[in-house]
Formats: sequence, structure tokens, C-alpha cells
Amino acid sequence: MTTLLDALRATVGAAHVLHDGDLSAYEVDWRKRYRGRALAVVRPGSTAEVAAVVRLCREHGTSLVPQGGNTGLVGGGVPDDSGRQVLLSLGRMQRIRQIDADNLTLTAEAGCVLQTLQQAAGEAGLLFPLSLAAEGSCTIGGNLASNAGGTQVLRYGNARELCLGLEVVTPQGEVWDGLSGLRKDNTGYDLRDLFIGSEGTLGVITAATLKLHPRPGATMTALAACGSIEACVALLRRARQRLDAGLTGFEVMERFALDLVAKHFSTLPQPLPAARWTVLLELAAPDEAQARALLEAVLGEALESGEVDDAVVAESLAQSQALWHLRESIPLAQAEEGLNIKNDIALPVSAIPGFVTEMADTLRALVPGIRLVTFGHLGDGNLHYNLQAPQGESAAAFLAQHEAALNQRVYDAVMARGGSFSAEHGIGALKRGELARRKSPVALGMMRAIKQALDPDGLMNPGRLLGP
Amino acid sequence: MTTLLDALRATVGAAHVLHDGDLSAYEVDWRKRYRGRALAVVRPGSTAEVAAVVRLCREHGTSLVPQGGNTGLVGGGVPDDSGRQVLLSLGRMQRIRQIDADNLTLTAEAGCVLQTLQQAAGEAGLLFPLSLAAEGSCTIGGNLASNAGGTQVLRYGNARELCLGLEVVTPQGEVWDGLSGLRKDNTGYDLRDLFIGSEGTLGVITAATLKLHPRPGATMTALAACGSIEACVALLRRARQRLDAGLTGFEVMERFALDLVAKHFSTLPQPLPAARWTVLLELAAPDEAQARALLEAVLGEALESGEVDDAVVAESLAQSQALWHLRESIPLAQAEEGLNIKNDIALPVSAIPGFVTEMADTLRALVPGIRLVTFGHLGDGNLHYNLQAPQGESAAAFLAQHEAALNQRVYDAVMARGGSFSAEHGIGALKRGELARRKSPVALGMMRAIKQALDPDGLMNPGRLLGP
Repeated sequence: MTTLLDALRATVGAAHVLHDGDLSAYEVDWRKRYRGRALAVVRPGSTAEVAAVVRLCREHGTSLVPQGGNTGLVGGGVPDDSGRQVLLSLGRMQRIRQIDADNLTLTAEAGCVLQTLQQAAGEAGLLFPLSLAAEGSCTIGGNLASNAGGTQVLRYGNARELCLGLEVVTPQGEVWDGLSGLRKDNTGYDLRDLFIGSEGTLGVITAATLKLHPRPGATMTALAACGSIEACVALLRRARQRLDAGLTGFEVMERFALDLVAKHFSTLPQPLPAARWTVLLELAAPDEAQARALLEAVLGEALESGEVDDAVVAESLAQSQALWHLRESIPLAQAEEGLNIKNDIALPVSAIPGFVTEMADTLRALVPGIRLVTFGHLGDGNLHYNLQAPQGESAAAFLAQHEAALNQRVYDAVMARGGSFSAEHGIGALKRGELARRKSPVALGMMRAIKQALDPDGLMNPGRLLGP
Repeated sequence: MTTLLDALRATVGAAHVLHDGDLSAYEVDWRKRYRGRALAVVRPGSTAEVAAVVRLCREHGTSLVPQGGNTGLVGGGVPDDSGRQVLLSLGRMQRIRQIDADNLTLTAEAGCVLQTLQQAAGEAGLLFPLSLAAEGSCTIGGNLASNAGGTQVLRYGNARELCLGLEVVTPQGEVWDGLSGLRKDNTGYDLRDLFIGSEGTLGVITAATLKLHPRPGATMTALAACGSIEACVALLRRARQRLDAGLTGFEVMERFALDLVAKHFSTLPQPLPAARWTVLLELAAPDEAQARALLEAVLGEALESGEVDDAVVAESLAQSQALWHLRESIPLAQAEEGLNIKNDIALPVSAIPGFVTEMADTLRALVPGIRLVTFGHLGDGNLHYNLQAPQGESAAAFLAQHEAALNQRVYDAVMARGGSFSAEHGIGALKRGELARRKSPVALGMMRAIKQALDPDGLMNPGRLLGP
């Protein structure tokens, strides 16, 4: 293996081939659920270097694991424990190649941190709307490889919808320049969307041309108290109808989720402490007066019709941020409460009330006292449906005893309603068994045929997504 | 071949296997540029029948050509002249399977006519925004197979962006049920987008789950006179910034295009007869008062800044329709004027002024007196850049002498600026040579590998898109 390491050093510089010492920043995922061991961590500085590294690995029959910010949630970006895979870190590829304001596009290299791109778009007076908790450290390459979602999907779509073109190094070490900045291009198969969400198993995304949007003149946030999940869905329908693309966020939080926030972050104000379900609505409009008028009109109608029992509209940016902070504090409050079972599921919006009601009964019958932390992006049909041990019981014992069985019950119910067992987090290592079991054999057969066609030697992130 | 015909008759019913008589409605494209001859026209009535037909053809080594409304522009849906292909018409599969108002989705079979789906959505108080000239006869299956564009792409995207899930019969005659109504589903490779735009070469789309949108409270249309294409781009930038998702249409029409309309449709009012470039803007807003206020504010600013020389805002729905009618009359006026060379190109919006100016000089130097008909969806970077014979010269002679050479000059310039030689019409038979010549070898290699992986026997629409 000295030969490969020497060749890699000659290609990217010895300083960028990490072999000895503590490589845990690369070999262990940030939740510390996956620990691998790499032959080496290689940090190329350009697309040509990525291609050269892939060709070298190919010559040596060595597989590669591409990695961005190492913020994934499913173990898709850490090596296995063989010590024989090359971890390909894209972190040095941080160049913003172009911002085209008339075309509303930004072209950036894979290693750019998401927040850096948001800021660059902002400095050009524009908006790159992809936004998620890890935005300070995740990279755009990883966002695209995993088709990241986040808080602005309702209005702007997933990472997929925000990408117009890609540059990719193929498993053969060739460079595909698909960095199109076009809204329309019907010249052959849609390779772009095949690579988006493929989790590094078909090639290495080295750069992307992204869609920018105008910055809204004003945004406004409100909280609404609903008596049931059915009322939340009715409010969503009304808000969409009245606000159309102006509706940029629609998050739901069940009482217990906010009770956990109250318990662990008692200084955070909770404006609607009695609400069974709390909805956070966010609206964008050309100016603040219009935003307020629209939001108050919708909430007024919803109060009158009985969908909403009470509501507050933020009076300032600080108040808006405080409302969002409440929503964002739920995962943190859960962590304070102890280990829990996380589910990242999607359903047709119309199926969510039935799922939430029946699933609660089922799970409480299975594990008396189980505490359900239900919240998420209702506007996208995406719930973070998390399960916490009964009050006073050991979280570790709860997980050890119940995690596998409860996950199966949740996924069974989700699939029966036409849902997804991985809405925005992907498959990686965590859910590859689930994919093999639950995806239709016809779909799996096509996926395997595509993997075989593009990466016949299985060099790109083997064992992930379609893994054994 | 009697055996195959008999088996097909036994599968779909003798009445739905057309073998004798005039089959030109299926064998000739509507522009009469492509004429083929089919072994038989088979009209299955269900997904199971489509699958059975594919399996039968497979057993007999007979290739299939899927066809929807036969309104394509590139000869992708008519058989070759061998008389040995089965033309698979999806026209009988017309069921709307579901409208889910809370989930904002509509599930329909491939043979549904686009207008029928628009109407069904409208009756549910919702909007299916895909809209194009052939909407009265094109089918949703064909729209998806060709990733159709149209007039609402700026706001709502192409057919691709309006589809959440597909049902597909594979080349092996299996049914893939991918009819997801989910906004988020990161479980494996994006097969949906691979089939969208694949022009029937990877399988047969039999049904789709489509995104619906709220109906805008009000829409409003205006015309603006700009002195240059640069001013049009500046107006687009301003309109996007101020109107954001409210801007639903932004079409440009060069003077000569509207002069042709004046010549052949002299009763159509032209409110800005002196404009060098005319822009049609369409805005959606929650109500008419807001729509008018926003549109007048944008146009007022643009007049002040000098981007716009004059403008008119439609005072009624009838006036709005008259302004759109002007735009829609350009292709008809061109046809009245005589045969012409049609180009469906896309460019980054920022590259359009340079292209338009330089290309005009180049073409006029090559063919003195050549008349350029420049119009299209500037908001999408999509121009219909058409070339008409010099005044008084034979159109047929012009085409015969210049079509190939002029196309190459146009495409060369488009590609040099990062554009596309087929923005919304696809490849089919017409542009397969162009695709083979102009697409990067790396991209073509991946496309061919995918085709080989999914359709190893080349049974699905052979010779189209990736054809010889």
C-alpha cells in the first residue's frame, strides 16, 4: 500500500494525505454512532486532483468514501472498519466560482460550507434558501449527495430543487462538466438528479450551480394554537390557499414536545402554553404591512372557523426569532431528557392525522407510558416522530429493549399509508437494511442495475445505500 | 408475426390492435415531418395490459414505440419505417385515479389529456399549472416523457418539477409503482427524474402523481416597451426582485416578430407599436388591488430608471387575454409568412443579450436580408429563435440551402455560452445527431450505460434520443 500512499502524496501533496495520528474527525460521525478506520484521508484541492485520486484508487482496487462536513445522520460518509478505504475529504474545495445575478445562479465547489454560500448570496442581495441545523459546518457537496431538506422546503424545495447543474468525477476518474445554469435543458437523461441523493455511491460531486432567489421584502412569523392535528391540516390548507408561495414555513409541535422545551429551557417564553398543537407559520411578502395584513387575515378566518383557538403574530424580528428558537429547541430538549428513538418520516399530508392518532394508540399499548415527541415540517408532510422512554425509566434500557421493534411498527404504518421511512436524512449505513426490505424489488433492481452500470467495480462508497 | 398479433389481440382485445387501414394518425407526426410504419397499433386499457404487451413484444424480440397525444416536435413518438415496431398508444388510459386536496396532489393515468387535468384541478378549486399550446390534445404521459415546458415555467417549473411520483412499466414488463405523493423521500436513487425526459427509451410511463397548487386570487398582465434586450434583462431582474414568486410570466417579443403578427392578423390591437422589444409580464397576487399596485409600482420604477419607455396594464381579463393572444400569434404569423427554421434554445439569462446581438450580425453577414424572429420565455432563458427567408425569396429554397449550416452556427454560439440546443422540445429523432455530436462524451457514456443497464435488448423506442 506504500505505492498508493506515495502516489496520492505525489498527486495532492504530502500535507494533504493524512495517514497517522488522530483521524477521528473524519473516521467517526458527529453523533458517534459510526466509527471506521481509513487507509488514509486524502484532501484534494481541485477537481483535477479529485479525478487523479479516483484513478489512482481505481488502479489499486481501493474504494473511496467521499466526505463533506461529516454532519450526516445515517453514517453515509465514514469509512468501514477495514482500514482499506480512502476517505476523500472535499473540505479544501471551497471556491465560489461565480455568482450570476441576472441568471440567479451561484456556482460553488463541493467543500463550501452552506452558511458561506448563504452569506455570499446575501452579499449579492440575493437568497440561497437551503437552511438546516448543521449549516455552519455541512458542505454543499454533502447537501446535494444527500438531497438535504431543512426548514424552507415548503417554499423553495429540497437541495434537489435548488440545483441546476453539477460537476462530477465519475468512478472511472473522468470529469463530467454538467455545470449548467439553465432552467430548461432537455438534452438526454437527467444525470444531475441521479447524482443528487446518491450518497457518493455513483461518483464524487465536485461543484454545483445553484439556484438563487430574490430576498423577500419582509417575513413574518406567527404561532397558532390548534386543538387537534386535523385542525393543523385544515389550517395548512387555508394558509396555502390564501398565501400561496408567500407561505414559507409551516411547522407543528405537539404539546409534549414543547413541555420538554419548557422543562429544560425554562427561560424561553411560550406564548401559547395550553395549546394541544402549536403551529409556527412563516410568511414572506413584498413589505411588512402586506405581510401583517395577510397573516392576520388568515389567522382571523381560522379563528372564526374554529381551526385555531388562539394565535400570536410576532411584533419584531426578535420575536420572530424567539418563535423559531422554540421550534429549534425541541431536539436539544429531547437530548437533555435522554437518549431517544428518532424517526424521520414523510407521509401524504392527508394521511398524517390518521397516522398520528392510530400510531399513538399502538405504541402506548406496546410500551405503556412511552412518551411521543411529535413535531416537524407539516407543510412538507415530514414529521420528526421521536420516541422517549417512559418517565423515570432508563433511556438506554428502553432503546436496547424496544428500538428495533418500535421502528418496525412505525415504518410499517408509514409504508401502509404511502409514506417514506427516510424523508430527508437518507439511507447511508443506518437504513440500508430497511431499504433492501421495504423498497419495491422492481425499484431496487433498477437501482442495482444503475450502480453496476456506472460503478461496475463497486469503488464508490461500497456498502452504503445499496449495501448488504 | 401472426403469433404476436394474435397474442396482442388476446391481451388487449381485438378492437384495440389496429393493423390494417389508415394508421396515419399514429404513424405520422402532426407536423408531418416524420412518417413511419408500425407492425400494429396497440391500445391497452390498463397498466397490467401495458405490462403484458411489453412482455409479449419482448418474447418476440419486437421493439415498442410509446405514444401519447402525438403532439411532439422532434419525432420521438412515431415508429420507424421498418413496419416491425409495435406502436403502443396510451390513449385509452384516461382515468384520474385520485385528487387529494390536503396533499395538493392529483394521480392520473398517462393517457389523460393535459387540459382534462387542468379542468379537474380547477373543479377541486386548485391549479395544475402545466400549460402549453398543445394542451387540448397532448397527454400527461407524453408531457412527462418529454419534460414539457410551456408558459408557466418561471413560477411553477417544467413538467419535471410538477411530478412527485410515477408508475412505469419497465422494459422487462414489470410494473414499478413509484406513485408517491411525497415532497420528501430520500430512499435511494431518483428513478422518477430518470424516466422524466427519457422519451420512452427506458420504459413506459403509465401513471403519475402530480403537484397541484392553490389558484391565485388574481392575475394581471402588462406590456412594456424596452429599447434593447439589455433593458429587457434589467426589467426581468427588477420584476423578480419586487414580485418574487408573484411573477408568473415574462415573455419577450422583438419588433419583427410583432410586425409579422400585424401583417397577418391586422385586427389584433398592438398597444405599443413602436417598441423595439416588447415584454409581456404576468403577475399573480392574493387580490386584484394588490396585483395592480405591485405591477404599477414595478413598471413605474422601470420607467423612471429608463429600462422601460412605455407600458400598459390590462384593465380586464379580456384585455389580458388579448395581450397573451398577441404573444401566441407569433408562431401562427410565422407559418403564414412561410416555412422557417425553428430553434428552441436556452441560455443563461445573463448571456442572452450578447447572444442576440452577435448572432444577428453573424447571420445577417451569412445570409443578407435574413429575417430573425426572436421571442420566447426570457424568464426561463428560453428563446424561440427562428429564421425566416429574406423578403421575397423562396422559403423552401432558403431552407434547402441554409438550414443545416445556420443551425450549426446558432448551436455553436449557444453551446459556447453554456446553453442548450433543445430547451423544451427534447431530442427524439430530430436532434439525436446533435446530441451525439454536442453532448460531452462523459455524459453520453453514462447515458448509454444507463440505457444498456435498464433496456439491455434495446426494445424501448430504439433509435430515439440515443439513436445512431
